[in-house]
Amino acid sequence: MGSNVNGDKATSTSNANGSATVDKGVDFANYFCTYAFLYHQKEMLSDRVRMDAYFNSVFNNKHHFFGKTVLDVGTGSGILALWSAQAGAKKVYAVEATKMAEHARQLVISNNLQDVVQVIEGSIEDITLPEKVDVIISEWMGYFLLRESMFDSVICARDRWLKPTGVMYPSHARMWLAPIRSEVGDQKTIDYEGCMDDWRNFVTETKSCYGVDMSVLTKPFSEEQRKYFLQNSLWNNLDPEQVVGTATILKEIDCLTVTVDDIIKVKANVSSAITKEDTWLCGFGGWFDVHFNGRMENPAECKVELTTAPSINDGTHWGQQVFLLQPPVCVNKGDEILVNFSMSRSEQNHRLMNVDLGYEIKVPSGKMLPPVKNKFYIE
Amino acid sequence: MGSNVNGDKATSTSNANGSATVDKGVDFANYFCTYAFLYHQKEMLSDRVRMDAYFNSVFNNKHHFFGKTVLDVGTGSGILALWSAQAGAKKVYAVEATKMAEHARQLVISNNLQDVVQVIEGSIEDITLPEKVDVIISEWMGYFLLRESMFDSVICARDRWLKPTGVMYPSHARMWLAPIRSEVGDQKTIDYEGCMDDWRNFVTETKSCYGVDMSVLTKPFSEEQRKYFLQNSLWNNLDPEQVVGTATILKEIDCLTVTVDDIIKVKANVSSAITKEDTWLCGFGGWFDVHFNGRMENPAECKVELTTAPSINDGTHWGQQVFLLQPPVCVNKGDEILVNFSMSRSEQNHRLMNVDLGYEIKVPSGKMLPPVKNKFYIE
Repeated sequence: MGSNVNGDKATSTSNANGSATVDKGVDFANYFCTYAFLYHQKEMLSDRVRMDAYFNSVFNNKHHFFGKTVLDVGTGSGILALWSAQAGAKKVYAVEATKMAEHARQLVISNNLQDVVQVIEGSIEDITLPEKVDVIISEWMGYFLLRESMFDSVICARDRWLKPTGVMYPSHARMWLAPIRSEVGDQKTIDYEGCMDDWRNFVTETKSCYGVDMSVLTKPFSEEQRKYFLQNSLWNNLDPEQVVGTATILKEIDCLTVTVDDIIKVKANVSSAITKEDTWLCGFGGWFDVHFNGRMENPAECKVELTTAPSINDGTHWGQQVFLLQPPVCVNKGDEILVNFSMSRSEQNHRLMNVDLGYEIKVPSGKMLPPVKNKFYIE
Repeated sequence: MGSNVNGDKATSTSNANGSATVDKGVDFANYFCTYAFLYHQKEMLSDRVRMDAYFNSVFNNKHHFFGKTVLDVGTGSGILALWSAQAGAKKVYAVEATKMAEHARQLVISNNLQDVVQVIEGSIEDITLPEKVDVIISEWMGYFLLRESMFDSVICARDRWLKPTGVMYPSHARMWLAPIRSEVGDQKTIDYEGCMDDWRNFVTETKSCYGVDMSVLTKPFSEEQRKYFLQNSLWNNLDPEQVVGTATILKEIDCLTVTVDDIIKVKANVSSAITKEDTWLCGFGGWFDVHFNGRMENPAECKVELTTAPSINDGTHWGQQVFLLQPPVCVNKGDEILVNFSMSRSEQNHRLMNVDLGYEIKVPSGKMLPPVKNKFYIE
């Protein structure tokens, strides 16, 4: 044998409404463990766009925190809990499922906020608080917003622990999609084909040297490799110049009212107008933004936005998720791309996503080009 | 958040004798999953040294297979089962825990051996065979032989299903250790120090920009990074020239009689003589060999050895595991390295290993240099 023990699938079984019954042990093995590393915490804490957005949302809206009770869901190293306390919170409950909780405790003490911040190690679904809170703050966003499905835990926290008058930080979230051009797809295709050539040599050699005919596995191998090279979405920090058409909103979320059923499946029919002359449609880029607006009866004095849209100077560690089309399609200014988008959770791992992305191109004459369907995986 | 969902720890709790109670779901998520990929099977099937050894052991010892019943433990794509059938086995049970079993079935049929080979999907601990077998064949070896702890399943299979007169393929295994020189350690130290400089800047910036003092985490961060850069053993394909002293045997295993208790902990005090003039002891290289000797009452006609020792032309996908010492120590021909070696299973994941490696250098005058202790992780 001889392999890296490197899990890439958890086991979670989907029930009727598509939500998952999760094996806690598997979930810890495959998901939470990542957040138990300080190195990973440091990466997130070094994301200036992320840090500035949360920092400004807290310190420019102290009226939401001063003298208030706050719950930080998935506090990690504890930064949001510490800021909430520094902004004048009366009490902050900082809940963290991993051993990172111990480091958060150290930070709380060394920053002399132990009278305000209480770190609780446990998952939000299991723990109990002594009171309801005025504010729930959390940095729960995964790639393309919903990967990791951590928002489920924030919703659970909100329904259990937020006062009827409470405020969510962030308060709103949106998923975006835009047509893009990219050279990456061509290279991925070359890599895929090289891998298949290699396989065919392997089949020939295994037959001649070892007397076993492997050719029956060529089809499943090509499917496995096609998924790996061409159907997995890619992390990418797109240059805004690569966006060749209007960006459209796939999903809008009000964090105060959304339910798990609302986010288990994201379906949207959207349309994007190509804005560049004579260009190539190489795929679609997906990203998100979140907003800190408070709530209608208790709005933020200073509204803050955190966007992960393509940017030259303000890229984030989330980047964008890119769904590549092979081969690219020649498009022109004025063409309209009608997109049929559907995202659901992987049956093997509820924190990973399957995406069905179909599109049709409507040229200015009104003529429709034949529709194309693609399946992608966000892993 | 925004991270790769990438498990690197399973949860298994050690009981009194150090053997593990394993969470099956976690084990599948973190371990078996790797073997469900054809790409990984292809890597193993492309390892010529591995393939030739098993191929020759079967076809040069047909008397062990002709008209006999065979059990292949962890058949993967089924190659060993197919060879056993081609060598004349009457019946072959090919047991595989992962979905790879489906591909093995396809291979069996496309190679027209469905009357002899029966593929059974399940873990060997759970499944039942209709009869005891004459031969158990398995490729169970992990990095440095015992990583992955798959041999536990072979022992279980042997105790449940091998006839008293049965033969094990392979029949014997040995773990080796030798002093080596390597430049890798210096680079790892530079990387580690760069990472710590980066951390110190991060602490300064987080304090000045965001008002939080992270310095209390400097120690745990340095421990995390020291483990990552300097205490994890490295996969390496060593040049025989890098071996600067005699290789010594840490452990000898008779696959017919060994018990799980015998391999849960590997302890050895060994001694190695430096064989090169004026050189550096930069660490130790660990590897293994296995032998196909049949059994005393029913020996192999053609004994075959599969070694993963450092080699220029006959490297394997197992390579060697390298344990680096920092800083390297100047040694000389005639110096004797007394090694105190101990390897046990990780408490978080019974398929990963913790290694305590202490050593003393005895110079020709008889003088002993102060002993050094090191802790390593095989992950």
